[in-house]
Amino acid sequence: MIQTEGYAALSNASELVPFSFEREEPQQNEVLIDILYCGICHADIHQCKNEYGGTQYSFVPGHEIVGRINSIGRNVTKFSRGELVGVGYFINSCGHCANCLSHEEQFCDNGITPTQNGMLSDGSITKGGYSKCIVVNENYVLKVSEKLNPIAVAPLLCAGITTYSALKHNGIGKKHKVAILGLGGLGHMAVKFAVSFGADVTVISSSANKEESARRLGSHHFILADKEILKSQSENYDFIIDTISVKHDYNLYLNCLKKDGTMILLGVPPEASVLEAHVLISHRRKITGSFIGGIKETQEMLDYCAEHSIVSDVELICPQYINSAFDRILKGDVKYRFVIDMSKI
Amino acid sequence: MIQTEGYAALSNASELVPFSFEREEPQQNEVLIDILYCGICHADIHQCKNEYGGTQYSFVPGHEIVGRINSIGRNVTKFSRGELVGVGYFINSCGHCANCLSHEEQFCDNGITPTQNGMLSDGSITKGGYSKCIVVNENYVLKVSEKLNPIAVAPLLCAGITTYSALKHNGIGKKHKVAILGLGGLGHMAVKFAVSFGADVTVISSSANKEESARRLGSHHFILADKEILKSQSENYDFIIDTISVKHDYNLYLNCLKKDGTMILLGVPPEASVLEAHVLISHRRKITGSFIGGIKETQEMLDYCAEHSIVSDVELICPQYINSAFDRILKGDVKYRFVIDMSKI
Repeated sequence: MIQTEGYAALSNASELVPFSFEREEPQQNEVLIDILYCGICHADIHQCKNEYGGTQYSFVPGHEIVGRINSIGRNVTKFSRGELVGVGYFINSCGHCANCLSHEEQFCDNGITPTQNGMLSDGSITKGGYSKCIVVNENYVLKVSEKLNPIAVAPLLCAGITTYSALKHNGIGKKHKVAILGLGGLGHMAVKFAVSFGADVTVISSSANKEESARRLGSHHFILADKEILKSQSENYDFIIDTISVKHDYNLYLNCLKKDGTMILLGVPPEASVLEAHVLISHRRKITGSFIGGIKETQEMLDYCAEHSIVSDVELICPQYINSAFDRILKGDVKYRFVIDMSKI
Repeated sequence: MIQTEGYAALSNASELVPFSFEREEPQQNEVLIDILYCGICHADIHQCKNEYGGTQYSFVPGHEIVGRINSIGRNVTKFSRGELVGVGYFINSCGHCANCLSHEEQFCDNGITPTQNGMLSDGSITKGGYSKCIVVNENYVLKVSEKLNPIAVAPLLCAGITTYSALKHNGIGKKHKVAILGLGGLGHMAVKFAVSFGADVTVISSSANKEESARRLGSHHFILADKEILKSQSENYDFIIDTISVKHDYNLYLNCLKKDGTMILLGVPPEASVLEAHVLISHRRKITGSFIGGIKETQEMLDYCAEHSIVSDVELICPQYINSAFDRILKGDVKYRFVIDMSKI
């Protein structure tokens, strides 16, 4: 067993506290990764508080991991010691269902094993990247280019692939008018990718003071998420990327879609929102969702980022600051992703 | 002016009563149609009660019209006296926007003129087919085959085209597992078309006693809309055609869709329903809507029906029975569409 340190929530009412635990030694196809940096995703906060249900404590969050290979199992062929690598939202899947075979492991028929709060075959619960090291099957590990700043790469493993896959799967690019709802971790990556893919991009945010940042990120337009202003945007967009993870009125935004337009949900509010059928029917609009991406697509995204110098905008923190960072995320006070420096644990 | 008789709601609390009114003489491009039969659509009831808002009284419903050409304006080229014709949900559109030019007049950028409760350029309100005659621009009139029973054709003008267009636009056919929610006017047409297009069809209904009828209509399977039973249908369908026009839980049904499956809303509940983002995101499911069809597609549908002997299952009533028919529709007590015999007015 490998003794390690991390940060964990001990109950749904607990702040994160320093936490010692053990990891299994890497098996034949596994690698041991020394974690350098781990991003903080809004879902980590929801899960700490058990807002989705099912959180098992002690809960160690973290699924935006960048680190270096420390050692490899004897059958590992893809990685060698010292390589810079990433780990995202899941660390295993069945490998033989139709979805796994078509490189969409995120939809594995037998269920993925999430990097945090996932159940392993022996019944134990996975502990995530708010820790010094992690052991992962090599098929679920990504190669990270040395060309990019590894701190700013960490959020690509969830916020990056989530937005990249949503845009790619829906064929979003040139000639499309795309609105991005919310300018947080997901939103700012959606702006970067949508601009890079050639779309005409508008950020819609409830904070007027985000206009300057939105434009600096490359957004061509900025709209305040105000009821009256949104009415003026009626039938204006081909796509809306909705990154908001608190309850909001879908109908208000759906109304901004053109005929046959699509709103893609990426944020998961813990409460349900209301939907008016006529808003869809009257213009044959669609709502859909998108869920991270497969391993192959995640590697493609990382390679695209290396080629186009795309990374996340981050604020690096020490582990002792995690609880304050959570508070600031809930207030929308981060540009745009906190990344924890795991060397400071 | 042409003096005529019909049935109208005089207020949102009124039953329908006999109502005399005048229609304009047909202009150069218009035809005067003697109405033979008019179907009763659930939306007529909602509009009588002003449940969608905006109903102008006296309100004469009716947009599933079959009749014969009585006379034609001097520039009419498509129709001649005595021809059997149909009129559906709208009687005009701008004719020059992108949607009109691409034969999707139902989405006219400048707004269609609905057959009932629509506003004409002179500010007057259109009166629908619960009446002895109607005057319509020839470009919004459909040819009806003499091969089919005209009574059973009437509901094709709304229930028929609404379901046909939804299935066609979404490419539904062989190899697709399709569930139809609700077995009323829309639902029974959805079954007939989906079966005709080669899909594997399941009716989902809250009335166990509809199983026999569902199978007689061609449905291959029948499922009771019970919470526990629906759970067993998880990830089972490629498409769900939702014809229910009272408030219901979308999430329960969305969960029955496979990955990348689509639920198509056709019914318009007056109240909004709730939607849980994770039900879409976790399987990249879609919800969309569909809205009647264009004139060209409606003609295509009528021709398809003539070729494949598809009509609606109807109960013919006299105009004096309309209020009782409304009551029975609200109880789900009709197989599957009431059609009013306008010769009995």
